[in-house]
Amino acid sequence: MERFTVRSTRRVEFLNITARVQNAVAQHGLQDGLCTVFIPHTTAAVTINENADPDAVADMIQIIGRLIPQRGDYCHTEGNSDAHMKASLLGCAQTIVVEQGILQLGTWQGIYLAEFDGPRTRTAWVKCLPTHGKEVR
Amino acid sequence: MERFTVRSTRRVEFLNITARVQNAVAQHGLQDGLCTVFIPHTTAAVTINENADPDAVADMIQIIGRLIPQRGDYCHTEGNSDAHMKASLLGCAQTIVVEQGILQLGTWQGIYLAEFDGPRTRTAWVKCLPTHGKEVR
Amino acid sequence: MERFTVRSTRRVEFLNITARVQNAVAQHGLQDGLCTVFIPHTTAAVTINENADPDAVADMIQIIGRLIPQRGDYCHTEGNSDAHMKASLLGCAQTIVVEQGILQLGTWQGIYLAEFDGPRTRTAWVKCLPTHGKEVR
Repeated sequence: MERFTVRSTRRVEFLNITARVQNAVAQHGLQDGLCTVFIPHTTAAVTINENADPDAVADMIQIIGRLIPQRGDYCHTEGNSDAHMKASLLGCAQTIVVEQGILQLGTWQGIYLAEFDGPRTRTAWVKCLPTHGKEVR
Repeated sequence: MERFTVRSTRRVEFLNITARVQNAVAQHGLQDGLCTVFIPHTTAAVTINENADPDAVADMIQIIGRLIPQRGDYCHTEGNSDAHMKASLLGCAQTIVVEQGILQLGTWQGIYLAEFDGPRTRTAWVKCLPTHGKEVR
Repeated sequence: MERFTVRSTRRVEFLNITARVQNAVAQHGLQDGLCTVFIPHTTAAVTINENADPDAVADMIQIIGRLIPQRGDYCHTEGNSDAHMKASLLGCAQTIVVEQGILQLGTWQGIYLAEFDGPRTRTAWVKCLPTHGKEVR
């Protein structure tokens, strides 16, 4: 599989990784099939949402922060129990269709690494599965 | 991939698309493998849940509506920030096993397009991946 | 596909099924590709999160329980509307990369069956898709 890293600069931040995922697909050479983006962390996630208005993403960060506050009556001593729950709610993997070598996304969709316990360097994995077993590349 | 459209009639509504997805799988001819249902929108999602008692779905709509109200102190001016967050919480893709040409679901499971900013016409994509590369069809 | 069952002992409980999923992959013989873990229930889910500190999981259970209480003004008469919503929020499927016959997970990641309406016996399905159609086993 392909791998890349990104660096978050705040505790909670949505980083647009669409171009990085597209690069990984191109590097692999996948023409037609599925690609799975997998985040090997427990306090970060991957989600697909609005790529145009940054206010929509800012609102999402505010909404999830109000739903699950960082401070609470938690047992886990690392102070990031909220981040674990947020990561599970969005999920650590997304599967996206690839056709003619291009990620198939809706007009307004972008792929985000959702950081919930940054700032940190995070890794994303991209695994490509061709529709027809052995592709001619 | 296969595509179909559905029409929602309310702002928030869960539309059972199980038969439509099964039709798409049959149209493709997939016998054994995985199919990914992908919703190319940022204020709608796809989820798998109760197919029998409509009250269960009505309660889900009520619960998520109380968690994330439509009106709030949001930046995004389109008035649908709640819908973006709800869509990310349920997710825009579901992957389902196909065997002998049939979607493998639990007895009580149905596939729903979850509309969070309707009424609108929405599109669903269905991508089929056979287990054994080239299937004899 | 491969199947296995697990038994929950409480109403809400996260059961670590990582070793069971790895066994299913080994039984199938998948060397390189994707495996999808699918839970064919509407009040249980599958999620990937912290495998080390049980307090992190305990906090996740507490957080989601406060977000969506069991008792509420619900229509569905079975008293488990909360469980349906929780299951959809975490999702009934997870897709994981397999390389050299091994599930590729982050250091701290484990796979959990999330029980929201136990105690019950639950089933998990594991479907393996090789990268190169027909694998030599």
